[in-house]
Amino acid sequence: MASPTTANWRFKLHETIYESNTPAGKAFDVALLFAIFASIVVVMLDSVQSIHNQYGKLFSTIEWIFTGLFTVEYILRLISIKKPVKYVFSLLGIIDLIALIPTYLSFFFIGAQSLLVFRALRLLRVFRIFKLGQFITEMNFLKLALKGSIRKISIFLLTVLTLTVILGSVMYLVEKRENGFSNIPESIYWAIVTITTVGYGDISPITPIGKFVASVVMLIGYAIIAVPTGIITHDLALAARQKKELPESCPGCGSEGHDSDALFCKFCGSSLFK
Amino acid sequence: MASPTTANWRFKLHETIYESNTPAGKAFDVALLFAIFASIVVVMLDSVQSIHNQYGKLFSTIEWIFTGLFTVEYILRLISIKKPVKYVFSLLGIIDLIALIPTYLSFFFIGAQSLLVFRALRLLRVFRIFKLGQFITEMNFLKLALKGSIRKISIFLLTVLTLTVILGSVMYLVEKRENGFSNIPESIYWAIVTITTVGYGDISPITPIGKFVASVVMLIGYAIIAVPTGIITHDLALAARQKKELPESCPGCGSEGHDSDALFCKFCGSSLFK
Amino acid sequence: MASPTTANWRFKLHETIYESNTPAGKAFDVALLFAIFASIVVVMLDSVQSIHNQYGKLFSTIEWIFTGLFTVEYILRLISIKKPVKYVFSLLGIIDLIALIPTYLSFFFIGAQSLLVFRALRLLRVFRIFKLGQFITEMNFLKLALKGSIRKISIFLLTVLTLTVILGSVMYLVEKRENGFSNIPESIYWAIVTITTVGYGDISPITPIGKFVASVVMLIGYAIIAVPTGIITHDLALAARQKKELPESCPGCGSEGHDSDALFCKFCGSSLFK
Amino acid sequence: MASPTTANWRFKLHETIYESNTPAGKAFDVALLFAIFASIVVVMLDSVQSIHNQYGKLFSTIEWIFTGLFTVEYILRLISIKKPVKYVFSLLGIIDLIALIPTYLSFFFIGAQSLLVFRALRLLRVFRIFKLGQFITEMNFLKLALKGSIRKISIFLLTVLTLTVILGSVMYLVEKRENGFSNIPESIYWAIVTITTVGYGDISPITPIGKFVASVVMLIGYAIIAVPTGIITHDLALAARQKKELPESCPGCGSEGHDSDALFCKFCGSSLFK
Repeated sequence: MASPTTANWRFKLHETIYESNTPAGKAFDVALLFAIFASIVVVMLDSVQSIHNQYGKLFSTIEWIFTGLFTVEYILRLISIKKPVKYVFSLLGIIDLIALIPTYLSFFFIGAQSLLVFRALRLLRVFRIFKLGQFITEMNFLKLALKGSIRKISIFLLTVLTLTVILGSVMYLVEKRENGFSNIPESIYWAIVTITTVGYGDISPITPIGKFVASVVMLIGYAIIAVPTGIITHDLALAARQKKELPESCPGCGSEGHDSDALFCKFCGSSLFK
Repeated sequence: MASPTTANWRFKLHETIYESNTPAGKAFDVALLFAIFASIVVVMLDSVQSIHNQYGKLFSTIEWIFTGLFTVEYILRLISIKKPVKYVFSLLGIIDLIALIPTYLSFFFIGAQSLLVFRALRLLRVFRIFKLGQFITEMNFLKLALKGSIRKISIFLLTVLTLTVILGSVMYLVEKRENGFSNIPESIYWAIVTITTVGYGDISPITPIGKFVASVVMLIGYAIIAVPTGIITHDLALAARQKKELPESCPGCGSEGHDSDALFCKFCGSSLFK
Repeated sequence: MASPTTANWRFKLHETIYESNTPAGKAFDVALLFAIFASIVVVMLDSVQSIHNQYGKLFSTIEWIFTGLFTVEYILRLISIKKPVKYVFSLLGIIDLIALIPTYLSFFFIGAQSLLVFRALRLLRVFRIFKLGQFITEMNFLKLALKGSIRKISIFLLTVLTLTVILGSVMYLVEKRENGFSNIPESIYWAIVTITTVGYGDISPITPIGKFVASVVMLIGYAIIAVPTGIITHDLALAARQKKELPESCPGCGSEGHDSDALFCKFCGSSLFK
Repeated sequence: MASPTTANWRFKLHETIYESNTPAGKAFDVALLFAIFASIVVVMLDSVQSIHNQYGKLFSTIEWIFTGLFTVEYILRLISIKKPVKYVFSLLGIIDLIALIPTYLSFFFIGAQSLLVFRALRLLRVFRIFKLGQFITEMNFLKLALKGSIRKISIFLLTVLTLTVILGSVMYLVEKRENGFSNIPESIYWAIVTITTVGYGDISPITPIGKFVASVVMLIGYAIIAVPTGIITHDLALAARQKKELPESCPGCGSEGHDSDALFCKFCGSSLFK
């Protein structure tokens, strides 16, 4: 029942919020990123005890302002899109909602405000800034290459996890509880810390046999780190050779006619490169 | 002397247990993986002192049930295969047996149950799940590439080990016992921790000269990590170019006629890509 | 109004100071590098309390001598170049000035001498020694390849930073203040320490859930380290294939006619490969 | 003046000791490697206090036996080679001597025996075992590729070192003595520990600014580790394409006619691939 004027108005709003080809769209994206960034900095500073004691009330006010702004943005997104339900249940839609709820929840539950840290998830929108620059081609290129690597990397990660379960269990037997390997999950945690070469040192082998097993784990980790690298290098070369075309239609809603530099569907917001 | 019916029955059993082309085979594989996974989770949880105190008896019962199931599986594997001795002494056969013994040993020896952690080795069967998906080509590809790299990686690891023995010995002289480098094996352990960039910090240099030597070790480790990566990347590219054919016959038992996506011999269970 | 003799004299001085084709230019470069290196060693040794107590006065004298020499060098650079203002505000020009100021400042402010550590920045001139050897081609090659990678590496680093903000925030919620994750910036610092596989161990997870999240962070870090490597390897191969020509004119001052092995503009000192 | 028989005897001795084509040569190599390995194990075990207390005298006897054997070997090497002086001052010749001296020195100086750890250097002979197997081609291939990378890796390491000096100096200013960064060399050590992602945690930043600088150092280290990898991968591909021929003559003594799988000159012992 929307009059042409309304449709026009909604279309313009959609273009401003969901795309960045028009000057208004660019301005909106930059302003939104700035707001997200500022709101996260406030949450961060508020988490520092000494700063909180001094500026806690100021921060609380600012958080309410940002929550207000983001609520308006959320409502505008709902209004201007064709299928609001799709947006609400899309990844970005859920994140946008999660960024709002904690402030409102703090009316009813003490401590709910601490959930505000999830507002950091909105940072994922930061990748839109590449749409503003000349990074778009390189980003699509990387996405294509990594998409080709996902299966091989999965096999690799599963192998590493299996290894850590086995090596962690062995270490639990070798080092025993007294030396910090208090149970098998803890020992597996140690194996992951070691095989990824992180090496906190919060748990480390004490007995000679334990140190020998640990050395083996380290050398394995040191040698197999090469595998994902080889895979990705190989798939980058493949992707460069093939330079696949953009998908004709959105894998989310089937809509067509996306711009050649589009990363997300302009109708439903889901990634075009899934 | 087996009647045709028995042969038929054994053949079907073999197909179900050792392969996964048939619906029954797939179901068996999935069920087995689930059972292995569940039994390992139980062993893990039982190793946590607080959980053991509460549910120890329940876990003990569950472990007996799993051991019973795996024993039945082991017997079925023995019955349905042509050459049971080959299976018993194959890697997977030994692992299957090791997963059973500890529970039975616990009748005779106190603490034998702790050997149950070796049940984690059965996780190696997890790679069968790739037969169920579309990972098979990529897995074979990785296997071929890594097979080509093994010799070069061996040379690399031997070089690293020689370096750690020499650098560890030097560090033992430089830092002396008082600073944690209590003997040469310990110093070699430190050198491995350092050259692989794990860096627990349980042993770290104290004297200026020691810190200098350690810096050299770190920079060596940082620079030579590139070598295995280069090797594997190179061999991945080679493997992609050559795409060698499947071996005609099993290197274990010489049998032929394996499916194009087979990873293990369907008669003796040994890897077709050794 | 410079007489031909003056012009000649300035030209020769310019050639000696800014280039290294002539014997005098080579000698100047080597002498300068030696002086920079020696002055930095003095600053380093002076920072060691015990050595400072013994030789503090000697070091102070030596620092004045080096400052005097570098001041003369700075003035000669100003005199012999066509556009002194350009040099003063170029990166190398600013560094050269920063290396001088602290000693003079120490007249007026106590402690200003500690700023002498910035003299280490002059070490950047060390890359001139490659002009003396046969490293020039390889260095240009690397520069070209890395220039091509910068955008992709930027995308990668932004992704890593976004991940650390999100994962650090999550960890702050999971582990709480009591376990060392005292605020969100601290937790982000922990996430960077972990995802880059450095792993100091000054902050490490205590609770089981925290250890699980940390394991995920480590595995992510372990898997994505492959991405920049793949990118650079790929761009090295590209650079090798294309072997782009030297730029015709200096991007800084537009001057032409640079030697084929020139890295910096011989007139304004800015990099030819920006 | 050597009679033909003597010449013949010396030639056979030379072939046995310096080459491994003949059965006698192979046997000698294997026996020597075994002796080196055993002697190093004895030195290692002797460094463990508790084992030394029990078996110290036995170990001392064994060390004398090994020293005797290696002395005989050293003399035979001197006799059987054309130019003994060249061998004495070659790398392997010096190592062979260093492995002998400490035991004899222990007559005159107490503690000289601790220098026995340098016997570990003889492990470098372990690479001869590749002559016995089929590793020779791959080893030569790796050597060629790495030779091509050396200059680029040098540039990389110099860049990293310059960075660590600068970043370490900055950190010294930021964190001050009280926080463990007690002087500039110590801070540079910290920067190396961090940029190579080793991360012992013996020194780690305390102040917020220090943690920020440290984060930057880590991200730099994480990103630039990709550079040597890219270089080596690239040069492996180059080496595979070019497969350069063996050098016609030894770069050490100019002699010709080496076997196609020779790694070291059979007359002077210097590497053929320098």
